[in-house]
Amino acid sequence: MAGNIFGDLFRVVTFGESHGQAMGCVIDGCPPGLALSAEDIERDLRRRRPGQGGASTARNEADTPEILSGVFEGKTLGTPIAIVIRNTDHHSSDYENLRDVFRPGHADYSWEAKYGIRDHRGGGRSSGRETVCRVAAGAVAKLLLAGHDIQIRAWTSAIAGIDMPESGSPEFDFSETEQNPLRVPNRAGAEQAMRAIEALRAEGDSAGGMVSCSASGVPAGLGEPVFDKLDARLAAAMLSIGACKGIEFGAGFAAARMRGSEHNVIPCGILGGISSGQPVEFKAAFKPTPSIATPQKALDRGGNIRELVISGRHDVCIVPRAVPVVEAMTALVLADCVLLQRALVRPD
Amino acid sequence: MAGNIFGDLFRVVTFGESHGQAMGCVIDGCPPGLALSAEDIERDLRRRRPGQGGASTARNEADTPEILSGVFEGKTLGTPIAIVIRNTDHHSSDYENLRDVFRPGHADYSWEAKYGIRDHRGGGRSSGRETVCRVAAGAVAKLLLAGHDIQIRAWTSAIAGIDMPESGSPEFDFSETEQNPLRVPNRAGAEQAMRAIEALRAEGDSAGGMVSCSASGVPAGLGEPVFDKLDARLAAAMLSIGACKGIEFGAGFAAARMRGSEHNVIPCGILGGISSGQPVEFKAAFKPTPSIATPQKALDRGGNIRELVISGRHDVCIVPRAVPVVEAMTALVLADCVLLQRALVRPD
Amino acid sequence: MAGNIFGDLFRVVTFGESHGQAMGCVIDGCPPGLALSAEDIERDLRRRRPGQGGASTARNEADTPEILSGVFEGKTLGTPIAIVIRNTDHHSSDYENLRDVFRPGHADYSWEAKYGIRDHRGGGRSSGRETVCRVAAGAVAKLLLAGHDIQIRAWTSAIAGIDMPESGSPEFDFSETEQNPLRVPNRAGAEQAMRAIEALRAEGDSAGGMVSCSASGVPAGLGEPVFDKLDARLAAAMLSIGACKGIEFGAGFAAARMRGSEHNVIPCGILGGISSGQPVEFKAAFKPTPSIATPQKALDRGGNIRELVISGRHDVCIVPRAVPVVEAMTALVLADCVLLQRALVRPD
Amino acid sequence: MAGNIFGDLFRVVTFGESHGQAMGCVIDGCPPGLALSAEDIERDLRRRRPGQGGASTARNEADTPEILSGVFEGKTLGTPIAIVIRNTDHHSSDYENLRDVFRPGHADYSWEAKYGIRDHRGGGRSSGRETVCRVAAGAVAKLLLAGHDIQIRAWTSAIAGIDMPESGSPEFDFSETEQNPLRVPNRAGAEQAMRAIEALRAEGDSAGGMVSCSASGVPAGLGEPVFDKLDARLAAAMLSIGACKGIEFGAGFAAARMRGSEHNVIPCGILGGISSGQPVEFKAAFKPTPSIATPQKALDRGGNIRELVISGRHDVCIVPRAVPVVEAMTALVLADCVLLQRALVRPD
Repeated sequence: MAGNIFGDLFRVVTFGESHGQAMGCVIDGCPPGLALSAEDIERDLRRRRPGQGGASTARNEADTPEILSGVFEGKTLGTPIAIVIRNTDHHSSDYENLRDVFRPGHADYSWEAKYGIRDHRGGGRSSGRETVCRVAAGAVAKLLLAGHDIQIRAWTSAIAGIDMPESGSPEFDFSETEQNPLRVPNRAGAEQAMRAIEALRAEGDSAGGMVSCSASGVPAGLGEPVFDKLDARLAAAMLSIGACKGIEFGAGFAAARMRGSEHNVIPCGILGGISSGQPVEFKAAFKPTPSIATPQKALDRGGNIRELVISGRHDVCIVPRAVPVVEAMTALVLADCVLLQRALVRPD
Repeated sequence: MAGNIFGDLFRVVTFGESHGQAMGCVIDGCPPGLALSAEDIERDLRRRRPGQGGASTARNEADTPEILSGVFEGKTLGTPIAIVIRNTDHHSSDYENLRDVFRPGHADYSWEAKYGIRDHRGGGRSSGRETVCRVAAGAVAKLLLAGHDIQIRAWTSAIAGIDMPESGSPEFDFSETEQNPLRVPNRAGAEQAMRAIEALRAEGDSAGGMVSCSASGVPAGLGEPVFDKLDARLAAAMLSIGACKGIEFGAGFAAARMRGSEHNVIPCGILGGISSGQPVEFKAAFKPTPSIATPQKALDRGGNIRELVISGRHDVCIVPRAVPVVEAMTALVLADCVLLQRALVRPD
Repeated sequence: MAGNIFGDLFRVVTFGESHGQAMGCVIDGCPPGLALSAEDIERDLRRRRPGQGGASTARNEADTPEILSGVFEGKTLGTPIAIVIRNTDHHSSDYENLRDVFRPGHADYSWEAKYGIRDHRGGGRSSGRETVCRVAAGAVAKLLLAGHDIQIRAWTSAIAGIDMPESGSPEFDFSETEQNPLRVPNRAGAEQAMRAIEALRAEGDSAGGMVSCSASGVPAGLGEPVFDKLDARLAAAMLSIGACKGIEFGAGFAAARMRGSEHNVIPCGILGGISSGQPVEFKAAFKPTPSIATPQKALDRGGNIRELVISGRHDVCIVPRAVPVVEAMTALVLADCVLLQRALVRPD
Repeated sequence: MAGNIFGDLFRVVTFGESHGQAMGCVIDGCPPGLALSAEDIERDLRRRRPGQGGASTARNEADTPEILSGVFEGKTLGTPIAIVIRNTDHHSSDYENLRDVFRPGHADYSWEAKYGIRDHRGGGRSSGRETVCRVAAGAVAKLLLAGHDIQIRAWTSAIAGIDMPESGSPEFDFSETEQNPLRVPNRAGAEQAMRAIEALRAEGDSAGGMVSCSASGVPAGLGEPVFDKLDARLAAAMLSIGACKGIEFGAGFAAARMRGSEHNVIPCGILGGISSGQPVEFKAAFKPTPSIATPQKALDRGGNIRELVISGRHDVCIVPRAVPVVEAMTALVLADCVLLQRALVRPD
């Protein structure tokens, strides 16, 4: 209700401010008997970490997860799984000049309007750092899904204005996505995009992009009409990621221009909000990083417009690091749907 | 959990199959003391009714809402408000040939895979008729919002491949939207689109389109980060409408191609998932009506491909009728956010 | 949240004021494929109806349930099941003198303090009539449980100060409970209690009593620790019935006086909040009907104390009619637990 | 849903096994701007700690809470407050003999039946140690309530078969309750009960008792009928405490024997599930500690009956330590009700 709990049966609570003591999550509803270790979680956290290439910030935290509960002798107990990740590399003093000013494109102003108080250091709770908890919880959800032969893979499908080959085209090479720091499915595309990113960095500017996601092995029948349709849940999951500005399923916005006779024959992973047995696919749009090196005009608490220079370390483009977050959120949605389907439809 | 309840505090349950006894909803959480009559609800139901012009089906039901509870001497009691709308004009026999076949682009197949049983008449619960309940509940939410000076308006911003003028442009005329049956904000655009619709009807085909929505008077501070962000909730609300295939906020998919220095200066109604005090705006894409007069290939229960001719009455394009549904869902989201904000932030 | 929704997976919403248009409920989360007819519901409603004997009011409504949705060709669809029961026999004018006065022992004062508005006719939403919806929903839950061989039976175990034989004693005869209007498990006890009730009626007074309940066939493993323990859920369910003032499980209040060595050997249907496989048993205490024929002192809206004479028709003791309500609420709790257990523990 | 989340708006998730890494909780929904420090929490944790007198175990943990998030410069942010309490003093080897045997009166058997796996060390998640999290969260709720002038006080009203003076009687002295280790409101009663406890300890046996609770300053209007009545919520809260076997409100079980004319004139803190403005009062019954030093018969995993000797350190009577737990759960219920009342009733 207060916004920090996700899911109905595979429920995840996240907590933590960017420059507070720790980030973390509690999973309530993970079935018992699942093999789980801290290393299973750390593997995905590493994919989200910065410092992996040209697009990202130099902030570098070990992001070592500690499992505090819910696992006994290597297996889940069916009790809450609490995972804590300490914040270690925070340069809070970098942010002192932001105490009384609202950064453009950030949540600073709206957060202050809502709560009347905020932790200004690195965006506090509204920081992208919050997604570390989602990735940790998503790693557990992925293990649950793996037991049902459901696989989720996401990649950067556009970045800095450069479109990558579509899934299914000969130029699309998924194995490439974890080989290049931008997570694009094409080597030449990676090089071209890297040059664009470097140019933006030199100009003190930033870039947006798109993430595509495909979940295979999803059985027919997941999703709860009418309000908790599978696509509705995925849409909420994606738009809950700070920088996400839109989502489309299947033909998406292009469908709005098609005729019925054209659109009806396109295979579709979700029909009427319920999975059809075909891969579930969508694209999410991400805005450019609002923290840019170029001086900007910004409103302050006194209602004045100031010139603001944002120091600190920032991604030129967060899209590559959003890839594991998109996967994690997709995993959380699907894990929840799997459990709901067990409950609401007689198992015999 | 089973998908038919929407909202956390202003909670709506909907029920009803297209060709069952009745459609309806129960609102649990409407504050006491609000003036409410059946006429307040009927006004919005009329806007959703078919038979208003070239794009829609000839099915014509009175859609007379009956308020069964929750209102006493013209005011809400704070108790559940139950609203029932009888199904009167159902030609169930039109659908007998659909008992064992799955219509392309419809939920028939996935629904059967999920539940193992379905009401095949007019799509049963997966019918667009289900949205009548949303509009009824939305009418109550709008009254609550009106007391907070929040106004919601939506319109058809693209239809049958024809884009309408953008809000803010000189050609955009909102007063036009309730004057033409397509709900487009430009008279010449309406005429051009009507001709396109008529051509599609003659060909036995159908069209998709886009709905834009703007909520004004929304105070800063609505939305609950991190998972129940205002945009996340609106995204779920829109994607829960059967034919919706995508949503974008602000610059949306175009933002993915922008630089930070460009994007940061665009005014934005939602920052970090919290309303900023500026109008909240989004666009939703709708696919073309899957029920077309042209014969199609369809899978049947025996696993065979049949030729299918869909009789019955169907909209060439549901987009104009989706306009009040988009408004209703937006109202439900905002009403819930208003109540949550009252609760979670100290009122003094 | 606003209090009219019960359950997590087998979710029930109830609505209706005592003298409004109708009472009703919507069940969201009933699994598909269950055989269900209006007669299945009416059977239990008849057991709750007044006019069955010396203890109850003369108000007599047909209480004919209409199923508006969720059932197709005699089976549940997995979609919401809406049930409506019209209010037909309301003598609203009997209540005109209660518009501005708060009846002792009733919710009138606290309701007005909470909402600032109330339907004074027959207690409005706070009337015992509201339980008709619980019994209707409970009838559906019982059908679900019957498919899992779970049986629930309740009876009057004390009434008007007279204790009935304990379950297990030779004088306990469950078959008697549906043969006498007080639902006590002993014929001589029934006669004795009936005389006590008649004496109270003659004096213009009323009586309380106890309901015992036993659920057999409950598999080990139901209930969700730590907060949603099976006994915690049953306790909430019972205390949600207007006149209930207490509940005890197993040895209950007597356990507070026992030693561990005594208590540990008592068989127990619930251990640590989880069913053990043995019958689940509890007792609930019900206060005497507050509406009595004797004139009473009552507060009015102006803050004055008035003499109040309550006319209308009232039960001398509601306990016998509470028996099917206790069963219904127990069924709702167990149905929910059964579905949760399916979801959260791997079925293989 | 999986049982470890409590509340609707002031939501608490707890986690931790008795002999795992840590216990803890996350509060989602605490309003912003509340002054909060670790010391505020530690104060209540100390009241729950063992080793305070004759009735309790010798296990002695510092129970130092660490606040990981949600507080900035001494004030709550409106974001999730995570609190962790490390488990430091666990003698896990004491429990090795319990790996394959189910202790009488404990959750061992039912837990294994439910999950198929359990942490046998000290009861794992079903241990009374779990209540440390409730007390931590309750301390935050109490601060919120203090801002609304709501005070909660609980005491031991019966222990080891000895009844203490009733609140209101001349022998009742609340100031005494925090002066004696049994938390009884009468010095002579404390001495008498202490002797009874010592006798039981010498015999290797244990005792139960009762906790009474009174909340003053509760405004009229809290509680959400019909299912989330204030008494229903408090009943669930109390029965969610492991050893609790029953609860009664007002006249409680005695009410079942009264006449209406008697009962109607008793002042009552809850009417129709809504607070009336008078103090909210109830009594909860607690069974004797099931872990006793005397050898007992116990079932093992192989289905055999064994003789079991329970070593380790155990309370002769947990009732005095249940007092702060009862207060904490009452505080959680009331905090939630206060926030709900803000939301659902127009503040003007």
